[in-house]
Amino acid sequence: MTAATEQKVSLGTLIKERVDALARFSEDPENLTRLYLTPAHLSAAEAVKDWMRGAGMTARIDAIGNVVGRYEGRAPGAPALLTGSHIDTVRDAGAYDGNLGVALPIACIGELHAQDERLPFAVEVIAFGDEEGVRFPTTLSGSRAIAGTFDPSVLALKDEAGVTLADALRAFGSDPDSVVGEARRREDVLAFVEVHIEQGPVLEDAGLPVGVVTAISGAGRFTIEVGGVAGHAGTLPMGLRRDALAGAAEMLLAIERRAGGSEGLVATAGCLEVSPGAANVVPGRVQFTLDIRAPDDSLRYAAFDNIRDTIEAIARHRNLALAIEEFHEARAVACAPALMMQLEGAIKRCGQRPLRLPSGAGHDAMAMAALCPVAMLFLRCGGGVSHNPAESVTPEDVDVAAQVFLDFLRHFRPLELST
Amino acid sequence: MTAATEQKVSLGTLIKERVDALARFSEDPENLTRLYLTPAHLSAAEAVKDWMRGAGMTARIDAIGNVVGRYEGRAPGAPALLTGSHIDTVRDAGAYDGNLGVALPIACIGELHAQDERLPFAVEVIAFGDEEGVRFPTTLSGSRAIAGTFDPSVLALKDEAGVTLADALRAFGSDPDSVVGEARRREDVLAFVEVHIEQGPVLEDAGLPVGVVTAISGAGRFTIEVGGVAGHAGTLPMGLRRDALAGAAEMLLAIERRAGGSEGLVATAGCLEVSPGAANVVPGRVQFTLDIRAPDDSLRYAAFDNIRDTIEAIARHRNLALAIEEFHEARAVACAPALMMQLEGAIKRCGQRPLRLPSGAGHDAMAMAALCPVAMLFLRCGGGVSHNPAESVTPEDVDVAAQVFLDFLRHFRPLELST
Repeated sequence: MTAATEQKVSLGTLIKERVDALARFSEDPENLTRLYLTPAHLSAAEAVKDWMRGAGMTARIDAIGNVVGRYEGRAPGAPALLTGSHIDTVRDAGAYDGNLGVALPIACIGELHAQDERLPFAVEVIAFGDEEGVRFPTTLSGSRAIAGTFDPSVLALKDEAGVTLADALRAFGSDPDSVVGEARRREDVLAFVEVHIEQGPVLEDAGLPVGVVTAISGAGRFTIEVGGVAGHAGTLPMGLRRDALAGAAEMLLAIERRAGGSEGLVATAGCLEVSPGAANVVPGRVQFTLDIRAPDDSLRYAAFDNIRDTIEAIARHRNLALAIEEFHEARAVACAPALMMQLEGAIKRCGQRPLRLPSGAGHDAMAMAALCPVAMLFLRCGGGVSHNPAESVTPEDVDVAAQVFLDFLRHFRPLELST
Repeated sequence: MTAATEQKVSLGTLIKERVDALARFSEDPENLTRLYLTPAHLSAAEAVKDWMRGAGMTARIDAIGNVVGRYEGRAPGAPALLTGSHIDTVRDAGAYDGNLGVALPIACIGELHAQDERLPFAVEVIAFGDEEGVRFPTTLSGSRAIAGTFDPSVLALKDEAGVTLADALRAFGSDPDSVVGEARRREDVLAFVEVHIEQGPVLEDAGLPVGVVTAISGAGRFTIEVGGVAGHAGTLPMGLRRDALAGAAEMLLAIERRAGGSEGLVATAGCLEVSPGAANVVPGRVQFTLDIRAPDDSLRYAAFDNIRDTIEAIARHRNLALAIEEFHEARAVACAPALMMQLEGAIKRCGQRPLRLPSGAGHDAMAMAALCPVAMLFLRCGGGVSHNPAESVTPEDVDVAAQVFLDFLRHFRPLELST
């Protein structure tokens, strides 16, 4: 075994061990639950700060509770390439969601530092505090503060215990009055590149350890209510029924068929409720949710228009009432093609095939896109499972991702500043 | 207006008024709730007994709480044509379910009595006490006692308050020890003919006031569980999904299609539950109920076999787990063709078209079929609505049904006794 090989293995193993160590900072001894600005979050933030300093970075916890580490370039104060991800978790979480995208770049910077290697630009690793949005009724607070899109009115929002975000920040040692001051100037930032587990099965299905994200999909969520006429399951002949569930079933299949026909488009009916809901009563009313996502908003809008036309026709044909209401929308965020190409270059140099895939889930990169070009490197996770204690990665895959990211840093060429 | 016309109108109105009067005997002043052996039931039973006596019948409350009225034929003690229905109700019931089938034949006997008209056979009207099975975990107690299929072990069953059926009978003034003695001898009984509202929309759809029941449909009820794999609604591409709800939707449509293809067959999925049931999670598991009914058991079994084969194929094709479990079965009860023809003769003589239709709901006639040939005359109800305060009939339809039943009585010819 060569020295180089030994080092590669140890980088992947180091990162995985650090993420596993972070997973022990939890509010619940039985599982991983690390909500924003809790003592568990503070313990994790302190550990991250220590690792940053060990990797030759300056490190601090900022006014919104992010841990910010900076590795200066050859000239101090140079514009920085930003990276990082979040260290808050959902309840009963997996270890790698977010946390891997913090530990990995710190370890890569540690490699540069160990070899006394400076880049022509600074690198900052940010461990965002609030991506999951579990504790307070807001999300992406950390990345929004950096991107300059933080809305100070959310400081008054309360958690379930009645604690405001402002008070929680003070208890964390941060200063809510300084949050807006964390916004970066565009000229100080080169780009934001986030490393994250895929949280889906595409890379595993393709047999690849990493992939390049094309866009964070936009999403629309709808409530669809189908109104028929309830009736006796024994006495109402099939030909006289206005069965809301049979109508909904036809709609669900039409939705599935339409989504399957467009690359990158997904549509999901995750909830469905039947009224009155008795074995011997023909359903009179069904309500279901529709979640449509696509890396391109125009694709998503066109798909929804088709779906709406189709389910309206089904309702008309079956003499059912239909009400469609949108209750959530998020626009798609495209990754910068120039950054995607640089990530692909690094992937190829590391001997891997660069697969492009959309991100169906939201990430800090969504908020950072308001500040600068963004890109994401996805890492294969076991079974595509996430937000679950069964979330897993292999040290070999982590090592590939770290080598790709390190290579990316070493070859990074800043994009032209767009005005 | 002739005297005959005046009398016809008054018969329908009389019956409807009596049923409306019965509806005031309720445990709940806000709605009609008259459970078996309650004070409300006793008040209704006493009223029925008075009407019977007013119609020239002997009347008594029997050991199981039925009101039994007997109108002797030309020779006292002759075998009897039995008729009647139930006077217990569901909670928040309609007025006509059951009760109409008691009030109507009493009024018809009253007509015979008024004209001092005796038939070559006796007629007994029975107001059964327990058809709905709401109070105790048993049903059809009254008709089973008469038919000789009453199981004395159910006397120990308790209602929600812990009162046994035996004690409730005693409080009602009946004698639980004498219930088995209420069983009729086959040779004393000619047939059982029940008048009942349709509880479905077929007669209304056909524009007819009455119809002849071909059979009380048999029913099978199943729980069908579809197992897929839950996943993130954004990150799981359509092509890699094993969506339990999409699979269930395909099954529901196949069930609907199969049931629609056979006259008299109905199939209903009345309950459906999705797990985990979140808007952003691809459903991992769906459980739904299937209720299949048909007037002919072989038709029902064949339909279920087809449905099972089809949904198994859908599950295989979609790589879903499938578990089908039957949790209820009731065999079909055919009406006696000779009785059906006699009812049809009466319908035609009353100037109506005799439509045949199955009964998808259960009735006392089911239990009486263990004793003797049975038949049923269905009466149109508004919108097919039943088990609901909105249950309705028109006095005109009730009048037609009464004239048909009276004509049927006057022309009734006993069937050959089967051995």
